[in-house]
Amino acid sequence: MSLTVAVVDAETPGNVGTIARAMKNFGLSELKLVDPPELDPDGEAYGFAGQAREDILPNADVVTFEALTEQYHTVATTAITNEDAAKHVRYPFVTPAELADELTGVDSDVCVMFGRERVGFTNDELAMVDQICSIPASAAYPVLNLGQAATIVLYELRNLSVERTQHPDAIDRANQSAIEGLHGQFGDFLEATDHPEEKRAKAQRLWRRLLGRAHPTGREVRTLRGLFRRADQKIED
Amino acid sequence: MSLTVAVVDAETPGNVGTIARAMKNFGLSELKLVDPPELDPDGEAYGFAGQAREDILPNADVVTFEALTEQYHTVATTAITNEDAAKHVRYPFVTPAELADELTGVDSDVCVMFGRERVGFTNDELAMVDQICSIPASAAYPVLNLGQAATIVLYELRNLSVERTQHPDAIDRANQSAIEGLHGQFGDFLEATDHPEEKRAKAQRLWRRLLGRAHPTGREVRTLRGLFRRADQKIED
Repeated sequence: MSLTVAVVDAETPGNVGTIARAMKNFGLSELKLVDPPELDPDGEAYGFAGQAREDILPNADVVTFEALTEQYHTVATTAITNEDAAKHVRYPFVTPAELADELTGVDSDVCVMFGRERVGFTNDELAMVDQICSIPASAAYPVLNLGQAATIVLYELRNLSVERTQHPDAIDRANQSAIEGLHGQFGDFLEATDHPEEKRAKAQRLWRRLLGRAHPTGREVRTLRGLFRRADQKIED
Repeated sequence: MSLTVAVVDAETPGNVGTIARAMKNFGLSELKLVDPPELDPDGEAYGFAGQAREDILPNADVVTFEALTEQYHTVATTAITNEDAAKHVRYPFVTPAELADELTGVDSDVCVMFGRERVGFTNDELAMVDQICSIPASAAYPVLNLGQAATIVLYELRNLSVERTQHPDAIDRANQSAIEGLHGQFGDFLEATDHPEEKRAKAQRLWRRLLGRAHPTGREVRTLRGLFRRADQKIED
């Protein structure tokens, strides 16, 4: 699958730059512009693009809407959907998360499209695209800014485009034997501090539940175990 | 649970406005500002805030970082995490989606915090907060713009804050008997068009798989059924 981003008839250069930055943050590079505003290298588009000023913005192609619908499986994002199937222009729609699920494993060239700042896409444009995507937001104010809407959609599609994130593969959680060792040490601590014998089992259960929810790291477990051990030694001295 | 947003020592009024807009889009209202830039009602903060210019921005409180850590369960968002448990300042961390899961059902006052444009939070500040959140992004360029990062986190937390979205409760899918009716009509159509008898079962299966993936609406099914019926009648005439 390939994933291309198109911005259609944006007014504000800053929004184009914001979208280019989100593309780079989420591993995308192909930007198509339909009727773009002027993108001055010293202006807001480049100012908002972060490192995307170096490649995505200068390499963006200016194309027609029709060229995109001919070449790609097109998905247009709109805040306002229709309420039911009586109007097919904006219905049915998918959420960004549903779109990510649907596109996983589909082998086609997909173009996600973002429209004008105030009015989004025209109904004629929406009628030409293959899918409608809409971000669930507050009914009281569902209209997101163009750059923010694109950022959310590209974030949701990241598993299709980001090969490697900045995060470690997995958080290094303590193994169970280390955790059990800490529970034993905590038991010794209760004994050393003369915690009332009839209340010890309850305190141990409380401690087990707390650590069970926290999924401690190996280092956290080793550090706590050492702290309780030191306390025991101090008390014995 | 209550959810408050804090912006710490932002330089750019536009980013504060962007965050206020995302808050309103996702059903939040409490904004706290630590060392904010000047927010001129005729300037960028209000210009970027959309309808949040009417309430969230003018009602924002200026507070200290310490006041927030005392009053709230604080979560700071950072692009750059530590790789392992040798450094606890930024480790372990949760992703925004994990944070949303964790906070569901927790009855506490939570403050999600967003830091400076270039340097985010200081290590001293991070040491004071309760949790670290980090957005998974491309390892090649994981640093999001402040306003875009906040937009994604508030989007992920929307189920904690948005009572009702702009979307209909559910897409009106066709019931199975309507779909089976369409399959029968499609069979009649194959017969009426003299589709080779030995290939009909295969064509019916293809059609069943296509509709099975598309989850058609009631209206789509009725329309297609009508189209095939008309075609049969035209052929019979």
